[in-house]
Amino acid sequence: MGEKTREQAIFDHIQKDAFANYLGAKVEIIKPGHSRVSLIIKDYMTNFHGSTHGGIIFAISDMAFAAACNSHGKIAVALNVSICFLKPSYPGDHLIAEAEEEHSGRRTSLYNIKIYNKDSGELIAKSQDQAYRKNEYFIPKE
Amino acid sequence: MGEKTREQAIFDHIQKDAFANYLGAKVEIIKPGHSRVSLIIKDYMTNFHGSTHGGIIFAISDMAFAAACNSHGKIAVALNVSICFLKPSYPGDHLIAEAEEEHSGRRTSLYNIKIYNKDSGELIAKSQDQAYRKNEYFIPKE
Amino acid sequence: MGEKTREQAIFDHIQKDAFANYLGAKVEIIKPGHSRVSLIIKDYMTNFHGSTHGGIIFAISDMAFAAACNSHGKIAVALNVSICFLKPSYPGDHLIAEAEEEHSGRRTSLYNIKIYNKDSGELIAKSQDQAYRKNEYFIPKE
Amino acid sequence: MGEKTREQAIFDHIQKDAFANYLGAKVEIIKPGHSRVSLIIKDYMTNFHGSTHGGIIFAISDMAFAAACNSHGKIAVALNVSICFLKPSYPGDHLIAEAEEEHSGRRTSLYNIKIYNKDSGELIAKSQDQAYRKNEYFIPKE
Repeated sequence: MGEKTREQAIFDHIQKDAFANYLGAKVEIIKPGHSRVSLIIKDYMTNFHGSTHGGIIFAISDMAFAAACNSHGKIAVALNVSICFLKPSYPGDHLIAEAEEEHSGRRTSLYNIKIYNKDSGELIAKSQDQAYRKNEYFIPKE
Repeated sequence: MGEKTREQAIFDHIQKDAFANYLGAKVEIIKPGHSRVSLIIKDYMTNFHGSTHGGIIFAISDMAFAAACNSHGKIAVALNVSICFLKPSYPGDHLIAEAEEEHSGRRTSLYNIKIYNKDSGELIAKSQDQAYRKNEYFIPKE
Repeated sequence: MGEKTREQAIFDHIQKDAFANYLGAKVEIIKPGHSRVSLIIKDYMTNFHGSTHGGIIFAISDMAFAAACNSHGKIAVALNVSICFLKPSYPGDHLIAEAEEEHSGRRTSLYNIKIYNKDSGELIAKSQDQAYRKNEYFIPKE
Repeated sequence: MGEKTREQAIFDHIQKDAFANYLGAKVEIIKPGHSRVSLIIKDYMTNFHGSTHGGIIFAISDMAFAAACNSHGKIAVALNVSICFLKPSYPGDHLIAEAEEEHSGRRTSLYNIKIYNKDSGELIAKSQDQAYRKNEYFIPKE
C-alpha cells in the first residue's frame, strides 16, 4: 500500500464518526497530528441560556482531537481533556476547532485545540487534550 | 413567591436546555447544588471506534453541571472543565451524570461530577468543573 | 515478607521524597489509595501578593497524590493534574492535602484531592489527578 | 510616571515572589502577557523516584503564569491550572517555563505554558492556566 493510499485509509476511518455525521460536522486532517472540524450552530444545539451548548463546543473539539491523535493510523483514546470557555456563541455562528500535536511519546500524546468563530476570528474556547496510544494500528504500518 | 414556587421556576428554566431535550436526556435537580442527568446511548452517539462519543459523555456531564450551578437561581456560566475518561461505554448503555457542589464563593463555584453506567455501577468518566457566578438572578430572590 | 512488612517498606520508600523533607511536609498513608500531607506555611512560601504560593499548594497536593498512587507498591507517575484555587492562605496557616483513589485501572488511576485549612476547615484548593501505572513494582508483590 | 517607569514598577513588584527567590528561580517579563522563568534543578528538588518533583515543575510554571497575568499591572489570581507531565527531568537539568497570553477578557485571562529542558529543547510539561482579573491595579494606570 503506498503512502497516499495509507493516508486515504486513515482519513476514511476517521469519517466513520457517527456523531460528527449526525450533527453535520466536517472533519479534515490537514497533516499527521493536525486536524480541523467545522460546524454551523443550529437552534437545537443550545443550552437554557440560549447560547451554544458546552456539549457541542466540546464535541467539535473532541472530534478534532480524535482525528489528530489517530492520524498516524495507531489507535489512540482520550485520557483527559481540560477546556476553558472564553466567549458565548449562538445559532448561525460558524465554529472551527483546530487541533495541533504538541508531543507524541510512546504511550501518550498531547494536543492544543483552539475553537474559534470563523467569521469574527474570536477565540470561543481552548482545550488541552491528552491521549493514550495503544500498541495497535487500525491501519497497518507498511 | 413561596419557596416551593421559586424551586419550581428554577427547575422549569433548566428544562429549557434545547440540546438535552434533543438528545432525550432527562435533567433533575435533587437539591440546590446537586443534580442528575440520565441518557440511554443510541447508535448515532458513537465515535469511529464504535464506543460512546466523548462529546456525548461531556454533554451529559455539562448538563448536570449547568443544572447544579444554576440551581440557586443565579446565572452561572462554565469557566473550565477537566474531564478524565476511564472506561468505554456503548449503544444501549444507560449513563448517569451526577453533580455535587464542593464550593460556592462570591464569584466562582466548583463541582465534582461522576459519570457512571447505571446498570453496572462502573465509573465511566469523572469531571471537575468551575463556574463563574454573575451578579444577576434569572429567578429573583424573594 | 508479611503484609505488615510490605506496608512498612512502601511507607519507607514514600518518605524518601526529598522536596517534602526539605519543606518540612509530613506525608502519611492512611490506607492503600488514601493519603494525607500536612504543612505549616512559612514566610518564604509566598508569592508577590503575600499569600501562599501556588507552587506550595500544588506541591503538598502532589505529595498526597504520589503517596496515594504509589501506595500499592507499583510504580505510578503523574500524567496530568487539574487544580482549582478557591481561597488564599497565609504564613502560619496549617494546610492539609488529602487524596482519595476514585478509580484504579490496569494502566491509569484517578485521585480526588482536597487541600484545606486545618484550623478553619475551609477548602483552599481542589485537584483531580490522573496517574500512569507502570508494569513494575518498587516493592515486590508477595 | 512614564511608560518605561510603569513597566519597571511592574517588573519590580513581580520580583517580590518570595518562593521564586528562595528556590533561585529567575523571572523575566519578555513583553506584556509573555514571561519566562529559569531554574537549575538541585538534589533537594526531587521526589521519591529521584526525578524533579512535580511541585517544582508546577512552581516554575506558576511563576511564569503569575508574571504573565500580572504583567499589565492589574491584580490577577489563579483560578485553575491543568498541567500534563510528559518527560522526567533530573538534578543538574536547566528548566525553562515560558508563558504566553492566549486570551484576555474583562474578568478572566488564559495562558499557554511550556516547560522545557533548556539544553535538549525537550518539552517536559505543558500547562493551560486561567486567571481571574480583579478590578484593581497594583501599579496604577496612567
